[in-house]
Amino acid sequence: MTYAAGRHFLQIPGPTNVPDSVLRAMSAATIDHRGPDFQALGTELLRDVRPVFGTTGPVVMYPATGTGAWEAALVNTLNPGETVLCFETGHFATLWQEMAGRLGLRVDLVPGDWRHGADPAVVAERLAADTGRRIAAVCVVHNETSTGVTSRVAEIRAAMDAADHPALLLVDTISSLGSMDYRHDEWGVDVTVAGSQKGLMLPPGMSFNAISAKALERSRTATMPRTFWDWGPMLAANERGFFPYTPNTNLMYGLKEALRLLHDEGLENVFARHTRHAEATRAAVRAWGLEVLALDEREFSSALTAVLVPDDVDADKVRAVILDRFDMSLGAGLGRLAGRIFRIGHLGAFNDLTLAGTLAGVQMGLGLAGVPVAGSGLDAALERLQTD
Amino acid sequence: MTYAAGRHFLQIPGPTNVPDSVLRAMSAATIDHRGPDFQALGTELLRDVRPVFGTTGPVVMYPATGTGAWEAALVNTLNPGETVLCFETGHFATLWQEMAGRLGLRVDLVPGDWRHGADPAVVAERLAADTGRRIAAVCVVHNETSTGVTSRVAEIRAAMDAADHPALLLVDTISSLGSMDYRHDEWGVDVTVAGSQKGLMLPPGMSFNAISAKALERSRTATMPRTFWDWGPMLAANERGFFPYTPNTNLMYGLKEALRLLHDEGLENVFARHTRHAEATRAAVRAWGLEVLALDEREFSSALTAVLVPDDVDADKVRAVILDRFDMSLGAGLGRLAGRIFRIGHLGAFNDLTLAGTLAGVQMGLGLAGVPVAGSGLDAALERLQTD
Amino acid sequence: MTYAAGRHFLQIPGPTNVPDSVLRAMSAATIDHRGPDFQALGTELLRDVRPVFGTTGPVVMYPATGTGAWEAALVNTLNPGETVLCFETGHFATLWQEMAGRLGLRVDLVPGDWRHGADPAVVAERLAADTGRRIAAVCVVHNETSTGVTSRVAEIRAAMDAADHPALLLVDTISSLGSMDYRHDEWGVDVTVAGSQKGLMLPPGMSFNAISAKALERSRTATMPRTFWDWGPMLAANERGFFPYTPNTNLMYGLKEALRLLHDEGLENVFARHTRHAEATRAAVRAWGLEVLALDEREFSSALTAVLVPDDVDADKVRAVILDRFDMSLGAGLGRLAGRIFRIGHLGAFNDLTLAGTLAGVQMGLGLAGVPVAGSGLDAALERLQTD
Amino acid sequence: MTYAAGRHFLQIPGPTNVPDSVLRAMSAATIDHRGPDFQALGTELLRDVRPVFGTTGPVVMYPATGTGAWEAALVNTLNPGETVLCFETGHFATLWQEMAGRLGLRVDLVPGDWRHGADPAVVAERLAADTGRRIAAVCVVHNETSTGVTSRVAEIRAAMDAADHPALLLVDTISSLGSMDYRHDEWGVDVTVAGSQKGLMLPPGMSFNAISAKALERSRTATMPRTFWDWGPMLAANERGFFPYTPNTNLMYGLKEALRLLHDEGLENVFARHTRHAEATRAAVRAWGLEVLALDEREFSSALTAVLVPDDVDADKVRAVILDRFDMSLGAGLGRLAGRIFRIGHLGAFNDLTLAGTLAGVQMGLGLAGVPVAGSGLDAALERLQTD
Repeated sequence: MTYAAGRHFLQIPGPTNVPDSVLRAMSAATIDHRGPDFQALGTELLRDVRPVFGTTGPVVMYPATGTGAWEAALVNTLNPGETVLCFETGHFATLWQEMAGRLGLRVDLVPGDWRHGADPAVVAERLAADTGRRIAAVCVVHNETSTGVTSRVAEIRAAMDAADHPALLLVDTISSLGSMDYRHDEWGVDVTVAGSQKGLMLPPGMSFNAISAKALERSRTATMPRTFWDWGPMLAANERGFFPYTPNTNLMYGLKEALRLLHDEGLENVFARHTRHAEATRAAVRAWGLEVLALDEREFSSALTAVLVPDDVDADKVRAVILDRFDMSLGAGLGRLAGRIFRIGHLGAFNDLTLAGTLAGVQMGLGLAGVPVAGSGLDAALERLQTD
Repeated sequence: MTYAAGRHFLQIPGPTNVPDSVLRAMSAATIDHRGPDFQALGTELLRDVRPVFGTTGPVVMYPATGTGAWEAALVNTLNPGETVLCFETGHFATLWQEMAGRLGLRVDLVPGDWRHGADPAVVAERLAADTGRRIAAVCVVHNETSTGVTSRVAEIRAAMDAADHPALLLVDTISSLGSMDYRHDEWGVDVTVAGSQKGLMLPPGMSFNAISAKALERSRTATMPRTFWDWGPMLAANERGFFPYTPNTNLMYGLKEALRLLHDEGLENVFARHTRHAEATRAAVRAWGLEVLALDEREFSSALTAVLVPDDVDADKVRAVILDRFDMSLGAGLGRLAGRIFRIGHLGAFNDLTLAGTLAGVQMGLGLAGVPVAGSGLDAALERLQTD
Repeated sequence: MTYAAGRHFLQIPGPTNVPDSVLRAMSAATIDHRGPDFQALGTELLRDVRPVFGTTGPVVMYPATGTGAWEAALVNTLNPGETVLCFETGHFATLWQEMAGRLGLRVDLVPGDWRHGADPAVVAERLAADTGRRIAAVCVVHNETSTGVTSRVAEIRAAMDAADHPALLLVDTISSLGSMDYRHDEWGVDVTVAGSQKGLMLPPGMSFNAISAKALERSRTATMPRTFWDWGPMLAANERGFFPYTPNTNLMYGLKEALRLLHDEGLENVFARHTRHAEATRAAVRAWGLEVLALDEREFSSALTAVLVPDDVDADKVRAVILDRFDMSLGAGLGRLAGRIFRIGHLGAFNDLTLAGTLAGVQMGLGLAGVPVAGSGLDAALERLQTD
Repeated sequence: MTYAAGRHFLQIPGPTNVPDSVLRAMSAATIDHRGPDFQALGTELLRDVRPVFGTTGPVVMYPATGTGAWEAALVNTLNPGETVLCFETGHFATLWQEMAGRLGLRVDLVPGDWRHGADPAVVAERLAADTGRRIAAVCVVHNETSTGVTSRVAEIRAAMDAADHPALLLVDTISSLGSMDYRHDEWGVDVTVAGSQKGLMLPPGMSFNAISAKALERSRTATMPRTFWDWGPMLAANERGFFPYTPNTNLMYGLKEALRLLHDEGLENVFARHTRHAEATRAAVRAWGLEVLALDEREFSSALTAVLVPDDVDADKVRAVILDRFDMSLGAGLGRLAGRIFRIGHLGAFNDLTLAGTLAGVQMGLGLAGVPVAGSGLDAALERLQTD
């Protein structure tokens, strides 16, 4: 029997479950985006969003979803024909470098097995080999939403510094920001790309670029054509809390409330909560006798866990059973991982009992789909949750 | 560590988790309660609420919480000094008979152990003994919210019929209506008392009397003073979809949506879902090695389960741990059961994974509170849920 | 042509237009009414609602609409067969004294023309004549919602004091509280009756009794039967922020927000705003050459204005035209005033431009209904609004 | 005195007042944008939005505000270095051609006085002179939000056809769509640019391109770099109701409700309502003795009215008085019109009484700001509104 009563479990790795108070905040009446009330709101948000990125510098907020912020990072800092160093860490890293190519950039793509992050050693090697300084930027996805594998951004930065290479470091944090520790300034990132619909606990529709002084400097002479994504007019208008074109006011109401929630809980606590839930989830996967996609424990994601199914199982069938029987959405395998994995999102507005419900749904779904499991993953997870 | 992120688990046996769509419906602008739009709404609700009671007769809707509907049932049908036959099945049954006493009625109270429902055999016996026909009404609580024990209303009716006694049958369904099978007409109930905040999935604030022809007839001559609760002006105004005084318009918007949800799922399916969740919960309790308060399986509630804790355990401490660590509210033991039980509400807008989360919270809370358990109740529950 | 686009103008004298922020507050998830979060809310509201009544004493909050608070005022303070002195100041005063009669009280009703308030001189006279001290209470409606006529409560109190009569003073402020200056303590009122859906800017569903020490004392021995309305258990539970039975939690969320709005604006400013809108409305009525129902300027209501139509006009037809063409609800003439007046509500969450829109609708409606008017009432109103 | 009570009057020409039901729809829980429920929603919207554009062809929906849809229209259809024919009809037309220049297009700009639309005769003349067929597109703003002046799109199309010129016709309908009659197919428009926050009655955050077969054909070979705005992947994903990157789900919920409202009222009625309100507004302006900015009555906007103030008056001071005293936002003069005009938005979810309130605020504000007026504009407006 299918039961549609109660609340849907949205356990894809984003969009995440939006807190009720954020949805309510978003339903306030739209106001004049050129008036004083808006100005106060804009000023507040442009300031208060910075700590989430770990920066004291400017953060641009686009009234557009995250893919746009990828484009913005590239077109504001690069010149046509320049080279970007990219890493095939998963589906979204692949899409981002494809975008770079379509925008007229050359892409130096390091192949990958989708089970590891960008390798700092390879960064070092490639930059060392780049004696002509062709590489204008290194593009890294902090947390690959398609695989649950992270890249070690601080180590990559160290490799760049060691190579004394002038390339910019562009980092996609779409599915890590607000869920995992991230330090734009400390790690020396030049452009951080983020979106509203994951750790920031908002519906999709807003995206971000945090910008280093170096990136800003580069943008002043960069020649790729840009208008909507142009930092220049945006930063100029932001000075006074305004925007050069119509912002998405109601999502900004939501952002105000979401930042309040993050601040009230404390970012440290937010990160610890995600770490703990990820550990409990991996404990469950191990107890089921299944395999976590990420192979290097230094690269485990705290935001989602991708689970490999046995070769003779279609992961999409498992997901379909779970959606049908237990009203829970899980993430599909994307690109080359289609059918091979399912992804459990455990990020955003989330807690122990919802995680328990989520893992219960996976465990029952595996059973109903005929996937043999070694033991109760749920009990293993509870053991972890009960500990501290 | 305490985590307040994510959604609170409100697993008391009412108020229940109100569906988002009901909350949204309630937030529509208040309208003129004497205008045509209201009239259409009133007419629709007064008609569509009847099937939930299993009646084709009138259902009065009060803009007041459930305790008021208890009073209404008494003052509309009885005369000062008349006798009501009551059963001490739990805390709320006790309160209802106290109310009767305070209203100037005589109460014939059958003592009970709070682990059984009203006994049809005792009804038969008492009515047979009442040769003077002093007993004007039999008052029964269909589902004792304080104990998770039901009374077998159909059998009580049969006992009354067998005794050929003219007493009215008044039944409190506050925590069963909309969750458990209930048949006002078929079971020959004279007044059914209900509230908004349980199976009807609304916030508290509205209550109901379903009224048989016999009760209506009795009300025409009943002499207890009444104004707010008086059926007469209410039924007269209801004829045209209106109310004799200001109704609570916005809760009525919510009721419209809640009835739509119940109708879409189908009442049969709603009842089956509650039965299934109750079975899974009892399976968990047994696996933990704890005791369900209800002793007679014919009287198990589908809406909540009261769990006895070992003698040396304070159930309120278990609840406190669970609230603090897992952000879940459970029901306390009331009256003579204070500290001896906790109550798990599994009614209203609820589904398998939320139940799993709920039972996970109880299981971890028992562990943290140092209550020894025999095994994984959660696994036992999942086994039940996975079956069909 | 009829246009249903845009926002309905709900200009009946209550329920009033509920602010969006109050509706949003009400749509938060229902919580455990026996838990710590609820306790904090209850404690806060029971304290913060007092200044609106002008009292430092207890205010009981019922999860029921205003008619119930009328009943509560009577049954908590009086004994069966006692006499109440009532004034036929309008439809609701008439209903209240009928209620008293139905509850078994004797009613000494002073007839009225529905165009004046309760006359302090008559109060003095009746009490002086009551040498046997039969009169247990004087019941006055502060602001007659059916007529837009107020009674001078302070002067009535003075008359009672002058007569040195022990009767209680019970005052209905359902359509004045939160809109007009009112002083429970200073004016020596014993029970103030109020509701949520007018000046408090909430949907209907909650009502109030503010209680003097004398009334409280009287309640301890009063013998009218009461349970739901009984102050005793209510005040006892309120001590800790709780309620003796299920409160209507979500309306309480709304009350919290409404009190915040009233506080932010400042009660003095709220009252001044209502006075100003009432003056502007009467200026419009005079400019149209129509008559305000209230005859004594000391008794003009700031919450609503009742407008007499010429003898050959059916006021309900004017209202129907306005509803049909301009999507605005006005109040009908009630009881003996049916068809003779329409009532313009200008209370609650209301401002100058909404008043202008309201009066524009009335002016156009009069024109369309063929009621000859002397001049532009709207211009007269704007002149008043523009002044200060 | 300032009164912040009641509802703000948002009478800028967009964002417009969002209906409550749209805001409520937007506050539903975010769903999986790759799941079946989303697919049904996407399919429905992509179909139902077409009639509002007057097209049976594809309409692309961007999760970004309107400025992005301008860029999309250009980058999908043109090649670097191609020429666009633009008309300086106001502030937004000026911004659009600036954008074209920044994107690497050549702009042939016809100067204007900001009081007339694009002149079809000039279109004819320029195209006739373009024997080399350098002009790749004619860009026209249907309704200049900064001036309240429309351009006659059908006549411009006729001029293009008469010249037998292959240029595309790109039209900005950001502030006319859903408020004024518009016919993408019938008028032979190639790309129609629109946004969510005006006649579609949504918050800002979504924008649109309606696309002709000819524009689609052109896009297949157009070489301007594009990724986020690229029609290709968008139209491919739209085939199945999906999007190539994360859509803004919650605004789509709002769009569904907004389309329902437009459909329920009927587009013909919606347009007639706007026409009527614009006529009433102009009647008010004339009665005040002020001047409507638009000089050609064939080019009057139905969505907004720009009002010229006397030379010695600062229009922004008038607006400030109105905002301060009457809590109403009006549009400022932009660019070369700064301080010379204020703009009254009368579009979107709007009705007669709200218009009356709006005009009352303007009339009182003029008075308070010391602007001499000839007579009661409000009375003139009511006369128009009362007529039919």
